[in-house]
Amino acid sequence: MTHDISPLHLAQSLLRCPSVTPAEGGALAFIEEVLNEAGFEVHRPVFSDPGTQDVENLYARYGKGEPYLLFAGHTDVVPPGDINHWRHDPFSGMIEEGELFGRGAVDMKGGIACMMAAALAFIRSNPDFKGSIGFLITGDEEGPAINGTVKLLEWAKARGERFDHCILGEPTNPNTLGDMIKIGRRGSLTGKVVVDGKQGHVAYPHLADNPIPGMLRLLDGLLREPLDRGTEHFDASNLEVTTVDVGNPAANVIPAEARATFNIRFNDLWTPQSLEEEIARRLREAAGNTVRYTLTCEPTNAVAFITEPNAFVGFIADAIQAETGIRPKLSTTGGTSDARFIVRYCPVVEFGLVGQTMHQIDERVAVADLDRLVGIYGKVLEAYFAAAV
Amino acid sequence: MTHDISPLHLAQSLLRCPSVTPAEGGALAFIEEVLNEAGFEVHRPVFSDPGTQDVENLYARYGKGEPYLLFAGHTDVVPPGDINHWRHDPFSGMIEEGELFGRGAVDMKGGIACMMAAALAFIRSNPDFKGSIGFLITGDEEGPAINGTVKLLEWAKARGERFDHCILGEPTNPNTLGDMIKIGRRGSLTGKVVVDGKQGHVAYPHLADNPIPGMLRLLDGLLREPLDRGTEHFDASNLEVTTVDVGNPAANVIPAEARATFNIRFNDLWTPQSLEEEIARRLREAAGNTVRYTLTCEPTNAVAFITEPNAFVGFIADAIQAETGIRPKLSTTGGTSDARFIVRYCPVVEFGLVGQTMHQIDERVAVADLDRLVGIYGKVLEAYFAAAV
Ligand SMILES: [Zn+2]
Ligand SMILES: [Zn+2]
Repeated sequence: MTHDISPLHLAQSLLRCPSVTPAEGGALAFIEEVLNEAGFEVHRPVFSDPGTQDVENLYARYGKGEPYLLFAGHTDVVPPGDINHWRHDPFSGMIEEGELFGRGAVDMKGGIACMMAAALAFIRSNPDFKGSIGFLITGDEEGPAINGTVKLLEWAKARGERFDHCILGEPTNPNTLGDMIKIGRRGSLTGKVVVDGKQGHVAYPHLADNPIPGMLRLLDGLLREPLDRGTEHFDASNLEVTTVDVGNPAANVIPAEARATFNIRFNDLWTPQSLEEEIARRLREAAGNTVRYTLTCEPTNAVAFITEPNAFVGFIADAIQAETGIRPKLSTTGGTSDARFIVRYCPVVEFGLVGQTMHQIDERVAVADLDRLVGIYGKVLEAYFAAAV
Repeated sequence: MTHDISPLHLAQSLLRCPSVTPAEGGALAFIEEVLNEAGFEVHRPVFSDPGTQDVENLYARYGKGEPYLLFAGHTDVVPPGDINHWRHDPFSGMIEEGELFGRGAVDMKGGIACMMAAALAFIRSNPDFKGSIGFLITGDEEGPAINGTVKLLEWAKARGERFDHCILGEPTNPNTLGDMIKIGRRGSLTGKVVVDGKQGHVAYPHLADNPIPGMLRLLDGLLREPLDRGTEHFDASNLEVTTVDVGNPAANVIPAEARATFNIRFNDLWTPQSLEEEIARRLREAAGNTVRYTLTCEPTNAVAFITEPNAFVGFIADAIQAETGIRPKLSTTGGTSDARFIVRYCPVVEFGLVGQTMHQIDERVAVADLDRLVGIYGKVLEAYFAAAV
């Protein structure tokens, strides 16, 4: 049987697979089938880790030569929420007034469908091109991200795979297709502060030690001064206190302990280590000799990274402009993505669909955007392999 | 049958009644029996209120004349906690090395035993005294305090009862019997502050509004300046923030709301109303135009009150000094008590046992203290009714 490789058909087929992390849902099997038929060598490694569920992944390569351009992405999706609130079943791939509905429509089954459609069309028109085209698709991006891209990259490296450039198809455009390429991401650091006091009765405060005023001082110390003013490609680093909890139900009791959590999205002025040192310094200063506290920062692999604008970024920006008439903004905003793992192996740039409805009820994509994105990816492939000749 | 009216026997009998609020446990029945036998007219009103459990109470009077001296107290006790941590069963009335163990030993079955022993001995020796001696004993002091002293006082008033003075037998002494008389109590006001923000992702702080920095400002506004410097008989009023809660488990989410509770123990410079106005003013000032919040103060009947030192206080202080050699401190410290309700009907002074072990594992009282407290209450009765002649 021969598959219809139009992006709409591919996207619909993927949307009909209920692949909420960590379920494979048939999505990777479908990709395997289509890529196999097109002559890719396809692998389906499953990764495990204590305390996590096994996750299926896919790695596929066409060609043996260089340069090697890798498309990366994920087929797992976040849960649909209350299905009754959706205009159409989130796993039915329904189309209404030119829009394709479904969980993953933009994040990022739609993007994967466009990558596949573009790659397969390119291969069909250029059977003798010199390089390689690959797909690195995980089922663990929206979940713990432990049995996904990190292990898949290690697995590929162990097999001797070496990539020259990567396009990650996350929905990077805030409003309109062509708005924004992500050429880097901020890092993320989460920490917890616990202030110790001594429990007692509010009527006898001298026999107790309320940890809450100390916590107020520490948090003020964290928030008073900005971490930096931003850099050439990055916004200023930002610290948010995400929760403060004491959990004392008794209004006549002074509590024994106060806890807070903060998260920092940081730019390329910082490493997780240097940032943790700065946080520790601010807390020490705010605490003086009076506040007893502990700081614990979660280990993080979400470092800040940047793919400096170069020829590769230029191919993508030019393709976008040619297809949409828009010169995309080169951005480093937003949350983290698997690009932080890929960048350890090769330069990576993110470009995909419009993210407005991602993770929401009625996630959807304009069918016209699918065609335009195939056009963009196709032009990138043409330029990329033409330059390599 | 004739009861042994030694304070030790009375205290042991009461301690053996498992009268954890709201259970009567046999304690009031025992008091009724003993006072009945001594010629008191005893009533056992039970009070109810929607949403609360029924609670038994006791009111007893000996004599019809004036002046009328009322002993007040409670037979209910707080739960014993883990019984395995006690040296002796908390409801067995065991004695070890001169100490009587049990839940309520000092708070305040021991105190009630001493009042009874002193009153019964006084009546036996002064069969023709002119005044009246009463007992107002509730089973709802440690609990919600809704079906207890407040209703018992109203009930007595409706019957035409009118008291001249009251001794409440709570454990007022911090360290040694004779340390401290309480001639007043601070008031208590509890309030809640809720700061409204807007939930969002930490990577997009400009699309969210974190309520935590606003909460830090409000709490700083509450704590920055002392409420007052204290008065002749009172310490400075004190505000404790007792809890701060956001309850946000996701470190990548900016929360929508932050909540805090505070409790103020206030002196006679304030009424609950004037204090609530001051709190509202401080919050308004700290919030400026940027923090959206609500303040809710719980209705309170815990006003600050003082029984100005006078002849009645003098009788008690003199009796203490004669019995123990210690001149007691006249204090208004500590938590609230039922005295705040009694003071609406007559002057009230609190004096009882040593509070060190109250509400704790191994609550206990020195047997010698029971005898001394009977001596003190007895001397008060002598002086009080002698002065009335
Ligand atoms: Zn995604
Ligand atoms: Zn008590």
